[in-house]
Amino acid sequence: MNKNFFMQLALNKAWEYQTLTYPNPAVGAVVVKNGSILSVSAHRRAGESHAEVVALAEAYEKLSGKEFGVDKYDAKDAHNFLLSLPKDFFSECEIFVTLEPCSHHGKTPSCASLISALKLKKIYIGAKDPIESHSGGIKILQNTNIEVETEIMQEECQALIEPFVIWQKRAFILFKLGQTSNGVIGGGYITSKESLKYVHKIRSVVSAMLIGGNTVRVDRPTLDCRFIDEKAPNIYIYSKRDDFDKDIPLFGVSNRSVEIISDISPLLDKPSLILVEGGEGMLKALKNNIDWLLLFQAPKLSDSQLSYNITTELEFLHCQKSGIDLMIWSRFGK
Amino acid sequence: MNKNFFMQLALNKAWEYQTLTYPNPAVGAVVVKNGSILSVSAHRRAGESHAEVVALAEAYEKLSGKEFGVDKYDAKDAHNFLLSLPKDFFSECEIFVTLEPCSHHGKTPSCASLISALKLKKIYIGAKDPIESHSGGIKILQNTNIEVETEIMQEECQALIEPFVIWQKRAFILFKLGQTSNGVIGGGYITSKESLKYVHKIRSVVSAMLIGGNTVRVDRPTLDCRFIDEKAPNIYIYSKRDDFDKDIPLFGVSNRSVEIISDISPLLDKPSLILVEGGEGMLKALKNNIDWLLLFQAPKLSDSQLSYNITTELEFLHCQKSGIDLMIWSRFGK
Repeated sequence: MNKNFFMQLALNKAWEYQTLTYPNPAVGAVVVKNGSILSVSAHRRAGESHAEVVALAEAYEKLSGKEFGVDKYDAKDAHNFLLSLPKDFFSECEIFVTLEPCSHHGKTPSCASLISALKLKKIYIGAKDPIESHSGGIKILQNTNIEVETEIMQEECQALIEPFVIWQKRAFILFKLGQTSNGVIGGGYITSKESLKYVHKIRSVVSAMLIGGNTVRVDRPTLDCRFIDEKAPNIYIYSKRDDFDKDIPLFGVSNRSVEIISDISPLLDKPSLILVEGGEGMLKALKNNIDWLLLFQAPKLSDSQLSYNITTELEFLHCQKSGIDLMIWSRFGK
Repeated sequence: MNKNFFMQLALNKAWEYQTLTYPNPAVGAVVVKNGSILSVSAHRRAGESHAEVVALAEAYEKLSGKEFGVDKYDAKDAHNFLLSLPKDFFSECEIFVTLEPCSHHGKTPSCASLISALKLKKIYIGAKDPIESHSGGIKILQNTNIEVETEIMQEECQALIEPFVIWQKRAFILFKLGQTSNGVIGGGYITSKESLKYVHKIRSVVSAMLIGGNTVRVDRPTLDCRFIDEKAPNIYIYSKRDDFDKDIPLFGVSNRSVEIISDISPLLDKPSLILVEGGEGMLKALKNNIDWLLLFQAPKLSDSQLSYNITTELEFLHCQKSGIDLMIWSRFGK
């Protein structure tokens, strides 16, 4: 198969962790030896090994038939283990990475220097690192005579890191909506447990959630991360009035702040990831500020009138299964 | 990668031709050598080479670096060419097929005997042939010492051929709907040219189209296959009244029949593929008869009130891109 085929596998895997890697970018990596796929891996969350490291660890497992000696998600241990392997262990391997490997030497050496040290045969890169001070990975690789080919599925690889590029500069506004296949959004839980879990995973990493005052009054939500047992996000309630019934469950969640705001503009400039959950009112109120829409679409049609009406263009970026539902990521208003 | 990974590639490719193969089943095939993928192929339409033949032809191209000597979609020529290759040409290859290879000897020898003659190393099969008189492919393969492994992703492979299984026995009712992402279905063309083309391809192979009288009166459609320049389908108009304005374009299309019926039950028993295009009225009228829903979902939201309301469960079977749209196949009412 051709280069795009392998890069598409890396992309698909990375999308499984879209936004969950905050503040890091979503990145996927595939290791191939003589045309045979050894691993399809991704960076799962900030603080864990980068995609390249996980992919090399899983390629090791495939090639050696043994389990990886240490926790492959522990960056330091994984780097050290990989560097302890015989020098030519990966010399017939190629790696496809959606993003230029990092050049930053922190708790561990950079991924670029790891790949150089392991002397892989070739690296295929999708998007270059958009942050000037982080880039340089390609140069490190080239200086150590690793063959580098860039711009493989560049547009798709750039779309994958668009949230990352935006949240470096200002708030990335992700609007999440759960609906039936004919656009009904109200009347209790619509989507499956798997989808609710994914939403709780996003909630657990965001800078804050933004929610409409009306939703708070009507739905009386909790807005925590109970399905995955993680810390609840801080909440901004977008409302002109501040006379909320303090028995509404979201006010009773410990270790998080709840702030009522009548103006969102101060939020928008701050580099951050803001998750919005709401309905037609919030869609309309934030129409010019929403970056992406994340639609959880349930396998049902409903004759309830609880639909939403707003006119805007979307651009589908990725569609994946989430339990029995579909999860559709799209640019909003483009 | 494991067996399911390769079978999933075969499945995805086959879905690209779902229902377009009528009256044949949709089938996909993948050829692998030492873990490296040589081809990902599918049966495209009745009268052309089966998936296995296309996959082997494309594997030949990859291995030899030459173009296939004859038209790979011409079953007879392709069989003969493949059989003329050196005896061990494919002996290190494995093939993944979503459906048991045919045992039927017609204009060409069966696919099972072709694979036997080519002495492939192993064949992985998804679903067994559901038609008693066609099966026997596995036995042919085993009798010639080809290693056979069955039931790989069996459930998914059976879902792929569900239309085929049904249209052997009775009418398979496929309801096509084009909508915005919030379920608006009216007000002119909603989906992209690519999606309209796919619909015209389905129209060109179906036994007949079924359309509601109201749609005929209001939309005044043509219901032909002009985007692909193929023969227009026969039409049943489901209506109690038969006083249609004969200037409505669909009546003026040559080489096809148009029949007005007030009862659909005679249609249902006949082994056939019926494509229904309509809105809420037809969805409700056919609620108990629709087998699958094919949703073309456009990347936009609309505040038009032209939505549809009906309560039913769906089961998502496959989602793919169709130009800028999504194409979502699902079981209806399950």
